[in-house]
Amino acid sequence: MSVPHPRLSINQATIKYTTVAEAVRVVQDAGIGAIGLWREQVQEAGLDESARIIADSGLRYSTHCRGGWFTVEEGPARRTAIDDNRRAIEETATLAAAGAEGSRAVLVLVVGGLPEGSRDLVGARERVRDAVAELAPDARAAGVTLALEPLHPMYASDRSVLSTLPQALDIAADFDPSVVGVTVDTFHIWWDPDVLAHIERAGREGRIATYQVCDWKTPLEADNLLSRHYPGDGMIDFGPMTRAVEATGYDGDIEVELLNQSIWDTAPAEAVRRTIAGFDSAVAPHLV
Amino acid sequence: MSVPHPRLSINQATIKYTTVAEAVRVVQDAGIGAIGLWREQVQEAGLDESARIIADSGLRYSTHCRGGWFTVEEGPARRTAIDDNRRAIEETATLAAAGAEGSRAVLVLVVGGLPEGSRDLVGARERVRDAVAELAPDARAAGVTLALEPLHPMYASDRSVLSTLPQALDIAADFDPSVVGVTVDTFHIWWDPDVLAHIERAGREGRIATYQVCDWKTPLEADNLLSRHYPGDGMIDFGPMTRAVEATGYDGDIEVELLNQSIWDTAPAEAVRRTIAGFDSAVAPHLV
Repeated sequence: MSVPHPRLSINQATIKYTTVAEAVRVVQDAGIGAIGLWREQVQEAGLDESARIIADSGLRYSTHCRGGWFTVEEGPARRTAIDDNRRAIEETATLAAAGAEGSRAVLVLVVGGLPEGSRDLVGARERVRDAVAELAPDARAAGVTLALEPLHPMYASDRSVLSTLPQALDIAADFDPSVVGVTVDTFHIWWDPDVLAHIERAGREGRIATYQVCDWKTPLEADNLLSRHYPGDGMIDFGPMTRAVEATGYDGDIEVELLNQSIWDTAPAEAVRRTIAGFDSAVAPHLV
Repeated sequence: MSVPHPRLSINQATIKYTTVAEAVRVVQDAGIGAIGLWREQVQEAGLDESARIIADSGLRYSTHCRGGWFTVEEGPARRTAIDDNRRAIEETATLAAAGAEGSRAVLVLVVGGLPEGSRDLVGARERVRDAVAELAPDARAAGVTLALEPLHPMYASDRSVLSTLPQALDIAADFDPSVVGVTVDTFHIWWDPDVLAHIERAGREGRIATYQVCDWKTPLEADNLLSRHYPGDGMIDFGPMTRAVEATGYDGDIEVELLNQSIWDTAPAEAVRRTIAGFDSAVAPHLV
């Protein structure tokens, strides 16, 4: 078994059917230094217990996944979403504080698609901006960076009305970089003809809160949400994007977050082993 | 049954399981004024026979579908593709000449994805540019406009390394607008935050060779190629894009091209009836 790259972090979505304790154990056992957890599992274990497990593990905490769902119009559902994001900010601060040195208090935000029955992309995008403005003081007070994640345009109607890095950067521009940044995920942006310039801009503006590597392969899975692959198993050339991120000075952990039923059906230790190998072959050679 | 809008054209892909004669008959019977055919069916009927059917019908010919597949490296496969596109140019000229006044000699180009085993998007895009340069003299001699079609980014690896209008426009810029233009298809570009500016640019540069309207709905079909819907059945707001196209002065036919198994399983006359109704409700109100 190869020694994991020191900057590799496993996002719990890659080993979805684990508790917090199980996820931490399998990541530790593999000799990996960092982890990012999902809110559902953290809430199941309890925040205090999750923080204790992270603290005991000696792992760095790389991101907390995830907040967002900001596109509904004003009303009780929107208030519920905003309140839930406030809890997510607190969770992020608590878990990052429990993590080892080098942990990052980063809350990944998937902003949401068109509200039921709406065709108004422009209005939905404005409501994302409004929600970020509403949450920014809480994030600042908690020392948490909100990491707006542009998702692949195939999710524009159902998951994210932000599809490109410039869209996310234009929203982030109203806020301090320590409070609002962006998530750079190869799976979502690899197709963009200007992706390298966008990464350079994100770095220049101090906005890269996390870098995630995940491969794309066609044909897509029947459920396009679950079409993510180990680095190296698909069509993405990780060299140019990874070097562009490195050139910005980003030196944080690099997460692998794989939503894919067949990976979920793999034993977690084996999925982690394959992630280590894919990262080593497809990503690590391009790191400084 | 509503009277079809005078600028509506049916693309044969919407009624895929038809011969040329059947497609023309069902479009005529519905009172529609224009049609675009697919090469497979034209070749099955024979080009001369297809031209005779078009001439007898009194229909306008709106586009010929489709050429392209330009991304493979130099060698026999690339030569075969280029030669095949030369035949497609001739077909386009012949069918448009057979069509009624207002016909357009437009060959839609789907440029192709990454070649087997390649991860080099940049190189693939350069080979598209090279192929267009090679075919431009033939197109010019035949009086045919090559209409580069950016496809949705979810097809970047398997169908089109051109994902945005600016990419297509940047290639077209090297050529006369009568020789190389672009296909504006709502399905592929609706998610783009700058889509209206891109349409304005396409018009300003004289590049809009055809406008196609097709709706997007999530969840996508298991085969994402077949996820296209009647206008009005999905999440696209046809108003802003249609008004932007109109504002450029584009006054040609507007095609509906629906790749969708359940539409293909509908009787062609019924699929055409539903297309007319969808166009009337979702698109026509925004036309000048």
